Amino acid sequence: MSSNSFGKLFTVTTFGESHGPAIGCVIDGCPPHLALAPEEFRTDLDRRATGKSRYTSQRHEADDVEILSGVFEGRTTGTPIALLIRNTDVRSKDYNDLVDTFRPGHADYTYWQKYGIRDHRGGGRSSARETTMRVAAAVVAKKWLAQHFNVRVRGHLAQVGALVPRTFDWDAVDANPFFWPDAAMVTELENYINALRKAGDSVGARVTVVADGVPPGWGEPIYGKLDGDLASALMSINAVKGVEIGAGFRSVEQRGSEHRDEMTPQGFKSNHAGGVLGGISSGQDIVVSLALKPTSSITLPGHTINIQGEPVEVVTTGRHDPCVGIRATPIAEAMLALVLMDHCLRFRAQCADVVSPTPVITRR
Amino acid sequence: MSSNSFGKLFTVTTFGESHGPAIGCVIDGCPPHLALAPEEFRTDLDRRATGKSRYTSQRHEADDVEILSGVFEGRTTGTPIALLIRNTDVRSKDYNDLVDTFRPGHADYTYWQKYGIRDHRGGGRSSARETTMRVAAAVVAKKWLAQHFNVRVRGHLAQVGALVPRTFDWDAVDANPFFWPDAAMVTELENYINALRKAGDSVGARVTVVADGVPPGWGEPIYGKLDGDLASALMSINAVKGVEIGAGFRSVEQRGSEHRDEMTPQGFKSNHAGGVLGGISSGQDIVVSLALKPTSSITLPGHTINIQGEPVEVVTTGRHDPCVGIRATPIAEAMLALVLMDHCLRFRAQCADVVSPTPVITRR
Amino acid sequence: MSSNSFGKLFTVTTFGESHGPAIGCVIDGCPPHLALAPEEFRTDLDRRATGKSRYTSQRHEADDVEILSGVFEGRTTGTPIALLIRNTDVRSKDYNDLVDTFRPGHADYTYWQKYGIRDHRGGGRSSARETTMRVAAAVVAKKWLAQHFNVRVRGHLAQVGALVPRTFDWDAVDANPFFWPDAAMVTELENYINALRKAGDSVGARVTVVADGVPPGWGEPIYGKLDGDLASALMSINAVKGVEIGAGFRSVEQRGSEHRDEMTPQGFKSNHAGGVLGGISSGQDIVVSLALKPTSSITLPGHTINIQGEPVEVVTTGRHDPCVGIRATPIAEAMLALVLMDHCLRFRAQCADVVSPTPVITRR
Amino acid sequence: MSSNSFGKLFTVTTFGESHGPAIGCVIDGCPPHLALAPEEFRTDLDRRATGKSRYTSQRHEADDVEILSGVFEGRTTGTPIALLIRNTDVRSKDYNDLVDTFRPGHADYTYWQKYGIRDHRGGGRSSARETTMRVAAAVVAKKWLAQHFNVRVRGHLAQVGALVPRTFDWDAVDANPFFWPDAAMVTELENYINALRKAGDSVGARVTVVADGVPPGWGEPIYGKLDGDLASALMSINAVKGVEIGAGFRSVEQRGSEHRDEMTPQGFKSNHAGGVLGGISSGQDIVVSLALKPTSSITLPGHTINIQGEPVEVVTTGRHDPCVGIRATPIAEAMLALVLMDHCLRFRAQCADVVSPTPVITRR
Repeated sequence: MSSNSFGKLFTVTTFGESHGPAIGCVIDGCPPHLALAPEEFRTDLDRRATGKSRYTSQRHEADDVEILSGVFEGRTTGTPIALLIRNTDVRSKDYNDLVDTFRPGHADYTYWQKYGIRDHRGGGRSSARETTMRVAAAVVAKKWLAQHFNVRVRGHLAQVGALVPRTFDWDAVDANPFFWPDAAMVTELENYINALRKAGDSVGARVTVVADGVPPGWGEPIYGKLDGDLASALMSINAVKGVEIGAGFRSVEQRGSEHRDEMTPQGFKSNHAGGVLGGISSGQDIVVSLALKPTSSITLPGHTINIQGEPVEVVTTGRHDPCVGIRATPIAEAMLALVLMDHCLRFRAQCADVVSPTPVITRR
Repeated sequence: MSSNSFGKLFTVTTFGESHGPAIGCVIDGCPPHLALAPEEFRTDLDRRATGKSRYTSQRHEADDVEILSGVFEGRTTGTPIALLIRNTDVRSKDYNDLVDTFRPGHADYTYWQKYGIRDHRGGGRSSARETTMRVAAAVVAKKWLAQHFNVRVRGHLAQVGALVPRTFDWDAVDANPFFWPDAAMVTELENYINALRKAGDSVGARVTVVADGVPPGWGEPIYGKLDGDLASALMSINAVKGVEIGAGFRSVEQRGSEHRDEMTPQGFKSNHAGGVLGGISSGQDIVVSLALKPTSSITLPGHTINIQGEPVEVVTTGRHDPCVGIRATPIAEAMLALVLMDHCLRFRAQCADVVSPTPVITRR
Repeated sequence: MSSNSFGKLFTVTTFGESHGPAIGCVIDGCPPHLALAPEEFRTDLDRRATGKSRYTSQRHEADDVEILSGVFEGRTTGTPIALLIRNTDVRSKDYNDLVDTFRPGHADYTYWQKYGIRDHRGGGRSSARETTMRVAAAVVAKKWLAQHFNVRVRGHLAQVGALVPRTFDWDAVDANPFFWPDAAMVTELENYINALRKAGDSVGARVTVVADGVPPGWGEPIYGKLDGDLASALMSINAVKGVEIGAGFRSVEQRGSEHRDEMTPQGFKSNHAGGVLGGISSGQDIVVSLALKPTSSITLPGHTINIQGEPVEVVTTGRHDPCVGIRATPIAEAMLALVLMDHCLRFRAQCADVVSPTPVITRR
Repeated sequence: MSSNSFGKLFTVTTFGESHGPAIGCVIDGCPPHLALAPEEFRTDLDRRATGKSRYTSQRHEADDVEILSGVFEGRTTGTPIALLIRNTDVRSKDYNDLVDTFRPGHADYTYWQKYGIRDHRGGGRSSARETTMRVAAAVVAKKWLAQHFNVRVRGHLAQVGALVPRTFDWDAVDANPFFWPDAAMVTELENYINALRKAGDSVGARVTVVADGVPPGWGEPIYGKLDGDLASALMSINAVKGVEIGAGFRSVEQRGSEHRDEMTPQGFKSNHAGGVLGGISSGQDIVVSLALKPTSSITLPGHTINIQGEPVEVVTTGRHDPCVGIRATPIAEAMLALVLMDHCLRFRAQCADVVSPTPVITRR
């Protein structure tokens, strides 16, 4: 598997640098006959787009998707679907200071030591710009999963710094630019982010994504576990430093008698497992949380070295988000959808014939 | 990639059920000329073994490794190394009650719904018994990495329930049966585990593993990131519900000015990144933590259903650990070593010729 | 994918050396619920076995298969099926002369230059002994394909030196030790092989394998084409130097008007394509031929070099076949079956929902 | 591995249909620091281009390659290299007759039965148009192999119908539009092809490709053999029906005493093996031949069926080659180069440290 590819049967390969001519992806393995039009990418790309609000980065990306292949007369054909987005609004000179300086907390130094060469403009390949194509690819996966299994994938911001939602309402999430589930806190959040921006600093965040409608049986033990694949999928998002399934790290302090999700004919009594047992979906909601670090692209000066190994001071002057976690919500949804799509196909490859004598219990 | 295989270039395929004739693995891609003898597996298998102490499960596994292939006159030949361990001390009748009952919090139900058939004895393929072969395979990886790069992989228990170490000493870790870094707390821990066992309950745990000596440059963006591969590797361990790199979920409340690890010619000033930036090792210690849920194999009765979907009560009567996290320490080390070994080979495939003009800075 | 693994979804990993403790394989991805017992491997392993007749190598391999995992109460469970055969009748001292000499036409020299170490006994990993496990794994694939699709895989020897069958009868094939389809020629063939043995020489062969019952649609363009996968699968058999699909090299002299297989509602008018068009099965018989070189293990002395690079004369004294092509027939069948099994699963992963409005035409 | 991807470490993913907006590829795993400019693709793409001469198809493809990513300031960076070519000179209406008719000998019927939908224009994804990107990707591989190992990859047409070269001269090959190694026969060949075109028919061909400079040790037993990977790579080229390594099918009539390539300190005495022993390069020239079928796109009417399964007559009226084998020469070279590049990287991943005590013998 290419390192820029993702998924065993529904395989997404992305390419492109932040300030190169274009970014794109190739989706291979999509079932035929799915209706697909360029304008269907608009909603999710807008949700991810950095220009959406004042609270995220100021780069304006038109992000018009061109479908280069794999779709004929408006339907997928089973051949690779290539998607292309030209890079526009590229202000590469913003990054001239970084030609030979490594921003601390960035991939600058590690790319350089690995490859001995790097495209410094806007982070090059390590830029979150790449995640645009994940979101685009997931539009295809989400649509297919919804049509065939009623699977729905949603996400929300679950924490920013020390702020946590006091109430929870899915309807609130898409009604504010923070994907925040507590409408009453939106002003508070705005003030918090504005203060951060003024201070030239940034903050971390927690994002939670949830899929409902997933039937039991998706996921392949031992090294292709559904939660294992989710872990790598989500950890591969820029700035992610931790991934949890279900109760996650809260499990550390739980007792077995509390954590185990008891079953009844009417359904599970709880969902500490986050919908995955033994690496296989249980029929409950798949619940995954991730921790995003505060971006290192801040205007507060910091110590670092240059390519000669000499000490220098660095100040990031490009357009950046005070909280990259906000934009990560649709990206995390995308990765969840892509993993589910892949495992759906894997499931039917091996187990299409299986008929279980046991009724599927209602999910909690 | 087979779902029971792990690693792109240093590939480990495991097989076997808890109560079947044997468990084993095939290691493919190992460089030739590594000295390897059956007795070298002893130490790490003993560290993992359930019969090691009263505080872990009472099953006594001899775990004698037979090398079936890939080693000639005591050295690896570059061909697949097959390792075999016969299952002994198998008391399958302990599990007769579970033939048609699904233990809550276990893979019983999900295996059944996926495959329509399962080996119920001791959890079958979903048993932690499988991890024995991960530890065995990692003995090979650890030895090669130590010889060629001075890489050292270590781990310790970092939390059990609400108990956290008050001091930290690597030397203490291997001097007690809990891999606990604070020698003064061992009696407290013993009492805690004993009380749990008496109560018929279990508790979760946190394990931390650390690799030092890893040079900068290992890890492949975008979907083969070092931290992404670590996340899936560790999440694939039984009972793991969360994985963190470096500051992990603590990043959520950090500021960028705090989190970014500033660099100087003398080294990094901190290691919140956990040794990975942009998916590539930075030369700092690789630090990974995982959350392990409390085992559901407890003697407190619980509600569940049987294969007819009827409500039943279940009590687990086999031999089990009150805290499966304890045994997970050497397993987590193993997965860390296997990921590093794989990425070492991947690095030299693509970048063997790279000469960076920038000196490698001392790790913190 | 490990280099000792084969198949994307029905994945077979083999291990073992000719004179090591054992050979074995791990089959991953097998659908659950297939009845499977150790004695079912007997027929095909006997067909491949070297001790079957005076006309193949004199090594007597008991080849008792032990099922180590993946089968519970006589049925596959969906977890990896490990098969093990202990090596017996090993006369390693026969090979002492070869410790530091490279037999011409063998893998001795290339393994040595690649790995700098090799198990010289009986060819080590490069021995055709490895193919035993391919045949064993294919027993599983053949049975599943027969049950689910009425696919039948057969093969025959099609040429030995200059000898070609004058008549063709499938029933004759299994009635003689040469898999020869012309019963009237068997004595002639015996005499030919005996004369070769007496002369201390060997000869090449052509083998043809055929699968009927394969529905249209198996095979994945562009790089996972059914014929592409067949080509690598068959070329990977020891001593194979060429692979043809359908008309194969005869196509070179054909006209388009002759080669194209015209279609009618009653079926195809010919099968020059060998059942594959554009990398996808057409519903016709899959027909593949392979060329096997004459073994280099002959008693006629030859020039070669030793590990110091000095010129030496070599005479092979072990037990060998004058025509390795004979034994290759069941091995080629096995590889055909394994490729089909893999593509069957791949087909239903992506295209399980496809309903074509066009009736499947009867195969010719 | 995606089915539209090729190569384990140097991975090429192609996309695009004959008459869609564009074709392209993503090359992942390329070592950094290779100088690369768009104009370097010109020579090989012209060699493959259909508009090159009157003897191949009349479609004029400008084939200007745009490098979308992976190259910074003229050098590869180690990140994915995306190449794009817009489709021009597309006359889709030529194919209107084929909307619901399956050309015999084409992929029309099999794509339709597999996917239930197909882009009929110019063959869609099954068109040889796709091979443009193989040639483009191989430009990168050839250049790197030449710089690092002095590997040279060349090819020539070896037979057209019954015509075979009477003399052999590499210099002649690039001096005529047929890649024909016998300059004296070029007029004869022209007349032959013209007569075919006039007759509305086509003919098959044999192509031979050769790589010199490959050191011993490339290739991975057992299922990643160099010859196995070459077989699938070449069989995946449109219209290929057979692949041979070295003596190929001539081996069938050879004796072992003739076929085995004896070795001396001065080199091999022959090269029947075609440079591969046991799946590993021997240091001799890698020699591979392929059989190409006569294209089914001919103007002679033929019988076939339509999507309702009714009998119809078909006449192909688009622009086509009377001998597709001619164009296949640079495509076959490309696939050989790509396989070698991949195995070069695989070799150094596992065996970078190996030092053989045996001198490499001069290749014959």
